[in-house]
Amino acid sequence: MTTDRIASLSPLLAPRSVALVGASENAARIGGRPLRYLREGGFKGAIYPVNPNRETVQGLRAYASMAALPEAPDVAILAVPADSMLQAVKACADRRVRAAIIFSAGFAETGDEGRRAQDEIAGIARDSGMRVLGPNCLGVFDAAAGYYGTFSAILDTAFVQPGPIAVVSQSGAYGSHITHLARERGLGIGHWITTGNECDVDVAEALAWVVTQGGVNVVMAYAEGIRHRDVFLGALDAARRNGIAIVFMKVGRSDVGARAVGSHTAALAGSDAVFDAVFRQYGVYRARTTAEQLDVAYACARGRYPASNKLGIFTLSGGFGIQMADDAAAAGLDVSPMPNDAQERLKAMLPYASPRNPVDATAQALTDLPLMTDYVRTMLAQGGYDMFAGIFGSGPATATFAASLRQVLETAAAGADDMILSLTMSAPREIVRTYEDKGFLVFEDGAALTTALGALVHFRRVFDAAASVEPPADTTRIALTGEPLSESASKAVLRQAGLTFPDEILVAPDEDVAAAAARIGYPVVLKISSPDIAHKTEVGGVIVNIAYDEQARRAARELLDRVRTVRPGARIEGLIVAPMIQGGVETIIGVTRDPVFGPVVMFGLGGIFVEVLQDVTFRVAPFGIAEAHRMIREVRGFPVLQGVRGAPPADLDALAATLSTLSCFAAANADTVESIDLNPVLARPRGQGVAPLDALVTLRTQQGSGT
Amino acid sequence: MTTDRIASLSPLLAPRSVALVGASENAARIGGRPLRYLREGGFKGAIYPVNPNRETVQGLRAYASMAALPEAPDVAILAVPADSMLQAVKACADRRVRAAIIFSAGFAETGDEGRRAQDEIAGIARDSGMRVLGPNCLGVFDAAAGYYGTFSAILDTAFVQPGPIAVVSQSGAYGSHITHLARERGLGIGHWITTGNECDVDVAEALAWVVTQGGVNVVMAYAEGIRHRDVFLGALDAARRNGIAIVFMKVGRSDVGARAVGSHTAALAGSDAVFDAVFRQYGVYRARTTAEQLDVAYACARGRYPASNKLGIFTLSGGFGIQMADDAAAAGLDVSPMPNDAQERLKAMLPYASPRNPVDATAQALTDLPLMTDYVRTMLAQGGYDMFAGIFGSGPATATFAASLRQVLETAAAGADDMILSLTMSAPREIVRTYEDKGFLVFEDGAALTTALGALVHFRRVFDAAASVEPPADTTRIALTGEPLSESASKAVLRQAGLTFPDEILVAPDEDVAAAAARIGYPVVLKISSPDIAHKTEVGGVIVNIAYDEQARRAARELLDRVRTVRPGARIEGLIVAPMIQGGVETIIGVTRDPVFGPVVMFGLGGIFVEVLQDVTFRVAPFGIAEAHRMIREVRGFPVLQGVRGAPPADLDALAATLSTLSCFAAANADTVESIDLNPVLARPRGQGVAPLDALVTLRTQQGSGT
Repeated sequence: MTTDRIASLSPLLAPRSVALVGASENAARIGGRPLRYLREGGFKGAIYPVNPNRETVQGLRAYASMAALPEAPDVAILAVPADSMLQAVKACADRRVRAAIIFSAGFAETGDEGRRAQDEIAGIARDSGMRVLGPNCLGVFDAAAGYYGTFSAILDTAFVQPGPIAVVSQSGAYGSHITHLARERGLGIGHWITTGNECDVDVAEALAWVVTQGGVNVVMAYAEGIRHRDVFLGALDAARRNGIAIVFMKVGRSDVGARAVGSHTAALAGSDAVFDAVFRQYGVYRARTTAEQLDVAYACARGRYPASNKLGIFTLSGGFGIQMADDAAAAGLDVSPMPNDAQERLKAMLPYASPRNPVDATAQALTDLPLMTDYVRTMLAQGGYDMFAGIFGSGPATATFAASLRQVLETAAAGADDMILSLTMSAPREIVRTYEDKGFLVFEDGAALTTALGALVHFRRVFDAAASVEPPADTTRIALTGEPLSESASKAVLRQAGLTFPDEILVAPDEDVAAAAARIGYPVVLKISSPDIAHKTEVGGVIVNIAYDEQARRAARELLDRVRTVRPGARIEGLIVAPMIQGGVETIIGVTRDPVFGPVVMFGLGGIFVEVLQDVTFRVAPFGIAEAHRMIREVRGFPVLQGVRGAPPADLDALAATLSTLSCFAAANADTVESIDLNPVLARPRGQGVAPLDALVTLRTQQGSGT
Repeated sequence: MTTDRIASLSPLLAPRSVALVGASENAARIGGRPLRYLREGGFKGAIYPVNPNRETVQGLRAYASMAALPEAPDVAILAVPADSMLQAVKACADRRVRAAIIFSAGFAETGDEGRRAQDEIAGIARDSGMRVLGPNCLGVFDAAAGYYGTFSAILDTAFVQPGPIAVVSQSGAYGSHITHLARERGLGIGHWITTGNECDVDVAEALAWVVTQGGVNVVMAYAEGIRHRDVFLGALDAARRNGIAIVFMKVGRSDVGARAVGSHTAALAGSDAVFDAVFRQYGVYRARTTAEQLDVAYACARGRYPASNKLGIFTLSGGFGIQMADDAAAAGLDVSPMPNDAQERLKAMLPYASPRNPVDATAQALTDLPLMTDYVRTMLAQGGYDMFAGIFGSGPATATFAASLRQVLETAAAGADDMILSLTMSAPREIVRTYEDKGFLVFEDGAALTTALGALVHFRRVFDAAASVEPPADTTRIALTGEPLSESASKAVLRQAGLTFPDEILVAPDEDVAAAAARIGYPVVLKISSPDIAHKTEVGGVIVNIAYDEQARRAARELLDRVRTVRPGARIEGLIVAPMIQGGVETIIGVTRDPVFGPVVMFGLGGIFVEVLQDVTFRVAPFGIAEAHRMIREVRGFPVLQGVRGAPPADLDALAATLSTLSCFAAANADTVESIDLNPVLARPRGQGVAPLDALVTLRTQQGSGT
């Protein structure tokens, strides 16, 4: 997406003037609510109610039509029924309005007729350049500007405070719900965008816009699918480079969920496993639950991230400490012990307490406040931690402990500016707020807290690495016709792309294979090479372990006979004579085409890892070497590549280079290549490279043909 | 645990009379609080404050000493400092008090001196038969009886309503915290027991007692370790047979957590993986977070469980429906579509809605209440579901939707007595309560709801299966000396126990192996058999694939030479001549000794499954065939046993029988057997049994010797 295209969203998302078509005097109606919100929210720009039947609406001068407006407004909110919508959209385009918001349902989600109406609106948007949000959406707001292009009922009772969190949601109901929850937790939300049926503006574009806005630290996103791959990936990349955390609820991860996506929206779902890979690739945090999405966004809202994953746990009850240590370990945090001298200092202060980590001062310690304060301060100053988590249950809310806990913690916090300070407590919002104001992150549940701290560590790493994300290598495009490729031809193409294969010789059907075999060196393998035979073993097209000339000649005759019998029409290029390579770890590398993300590279170990455990991982093409290394480390079978049972470690650098190179080729030739299979690829011992033993490039036009 | 031993807890947990030693006039102090709670809670039995310095305490007549009491009370609450505790305990024992509760810290958790004091108290308990709870515990309450043997501060502001949930917690702080959370959610708690340092009464005994009490539907348990294996397993078994759901927070699952357990309590932690296996074996639900523990207990509190895992999801927003479908799939629920005719009926009512499942009526449907009511009723009546989940966000709390939603749902609920009805909503407690009163389970988070529904399905299966849990097979004990066993001797012992091995012949060192080999049938394998050589391959003690007489003789000479060189002192029983068995799936079966649970059977697939993926599972011995089948299905590699790449399915019945038989042997001979290794065990094609190729039984007294 060009910068222009992003900029074209500003009239929609941050307008200077707003028209409301279908403006209603009744502030509870869909046509009345946005007006009420705009006025009560203190929107500074011009507001133009459009209503042919009234002089004024809610006290503002009304206009009879779009044509009657004194200026073309930045955005028009169209609060009219579905059957008058097309006319309203046309009127906007004619008046050169720069953006329109369509609330009404009754379009693509209802069937073919609705889809045709929606397509007409999309056509007007395309032709006029007017950006359209919706239909079937809840609109947009910008709490800081007092701009409310929405009728969401959650604002009925109270506005949301502006703040560093943005919400970008395909579903209006979800966007409203999570905002309601955020407000209950005292969180501020700046930009709020729901995209609904996405006839024009989609989640990807909204994300791309929002991550370039000042004051945004974190985005809570929701989507069922994505329409614009490049815009989406560009937005994710911009977010990490700008230090903005994206916390994503992507639904449709189960089969039944994916089917439901199909019946709900028109978005292409794509493969959820590929979505998952994209999120890992770009450092997006994928929330599994709404509660988790909120917890992580809450923690990221301040835009502060820890220097490392070292966590010091402080508790007055051993049991709580153990539980949090478990949770912290599960979240990838390092609960390493205090340095010995610091432990000794703490031991000297409270002999019966446990100063290791978790640091358990016991409830008794609360009876001596100065000592306790000193104790916590010592832990913070000398523990070597970048994060602190204190566990307090309902203590801060009880008459018995509230005052002493507050004193201890506030004193401690004053000296720990560089640390992430966090607490668990079960207390009313007003008590929680006082701790938040002192800089503490406060959670009710310890597992929620450690999950959120784990997410902070994750984002710190993502942001640190973002600057050095290498641009993918240049790859020249390779001219490929739609003709099927044989193994030989496939390998030739991939060699051009920069991949290396073991030396092998293609011998014509009437030539003597023995000479070639001698040149390759026995033992050899013989394989049929035909553009019409994609799966050689199915036709008996491979003979292995050939040891001498006569055996080679016999094998060649046999192979040709078999194939001519089973596939009489197949064009036979000849026989591939290849060395028998053994040793190394069997891996599988492939490229498939995702309906959303295009060429996707798959990696896995061979044998049961793929067949039984489905232990594979994906990356969207193209990607660099560092990303390929991360990819390789994601499979559960990775220890095999490090060497087991005395085997040497595999050549991970060569493997990563192969994956990256292949990804660049796949990306550069996405319009012609349908899929690529390298199976098996032997990952040989370190320094010896990789050996892809078989290769098949399938081109797009030959889809479905050949077996 | 005998019934007597369980019954001996009743004076402690359900007393008719209570003495409070160290009774204080100040109701905020540890010695004052229990008295205040007992009086305000309406305890019906006698209450005897003991205080030598006062005539009355909190208005009740006080007694100068235990000796001065008019009767021996069932229980004495000892609210005295640690340094006067021994004397107080002695006084109780002398007065023949039947149970005592010790709040004070300062015992085993503080070091050796404290441990000695605690051991003295334990000795008095043992000698006198007086049951002792604590020290370092928060005590006990029975909300229905108004019995409060606790000073927990959470009762300061309000009591907990009695109800079908019991709490059994080693940690007083944890027990208090989860009770606080339960109360906030409006849940009732009957029995509440915290065990602290467990010098006598432990979590296992408390569980055993509580699961035999009427009115208990669910237990929320917390433990860092377990002291009494048999009592614990007996309690878990009784719970499932009585239809009581146990929801367990077992901490120390991470390495760092397990270390913290060590520094916190004296309980043996045991292996967390074995705990996990015990929970699976006995159908205990292991909660990963406190929030989850509460959610599941909440769902189980009514003691109603669904007939199947079929869930119908109802929503007014497609996005929420998809999200819940994902969550439901993750929780193992079946979100199958409505029957076609039911879908058609719904389609006729609301043409634009999506009637499949999730059923998405869209927000528009709320405008026609009678239609909507009919719609939901039709879904419930004709969907074929045993569970219903409706997703409502903050709708039930908004002026716009509250009334209509209530009418729809209450009408619907009236006709669905057999179903588990559940809702998500974000609403104040008083609104939630009205839905709960109509029979709905109400959650704020959809993922929490589906997790809880999954737990209900789990417990239904566990309770249904509990009746048919087969008693483990009788196994006669086998006389075993402490002498190390050779492979031959190990196999002989295991044959006696009922295991089968391939036919093989032990040939003395000076005998001719060829005759034996011919009888077994070539090809054969030759192995050294020596009680002093546990790991034969390390000394080159195995030669495989021997094809003819002369090769066999040469191999025999070579084997004996090698072993005599490498292990000159080893006693050589002779050479095992065994058939070369190939084909089948390589598995590993073992028995180890857990410090808590004793003999534990391990099962896994061979090769990378064990070595790279640690893909093994455990069961505490003994167990029956059905349990062994469940065990086999738990490993990730299970599909390999079902047959992959055209291989036939393995003989699962024979594998299960082997596991069960071995478990019975291990249990019956737990005092003599340290460990057993059967590696590999070939699981042969169905009908052909299993073939353990190697066996080693290690006896307890030979621990550490032999390599």
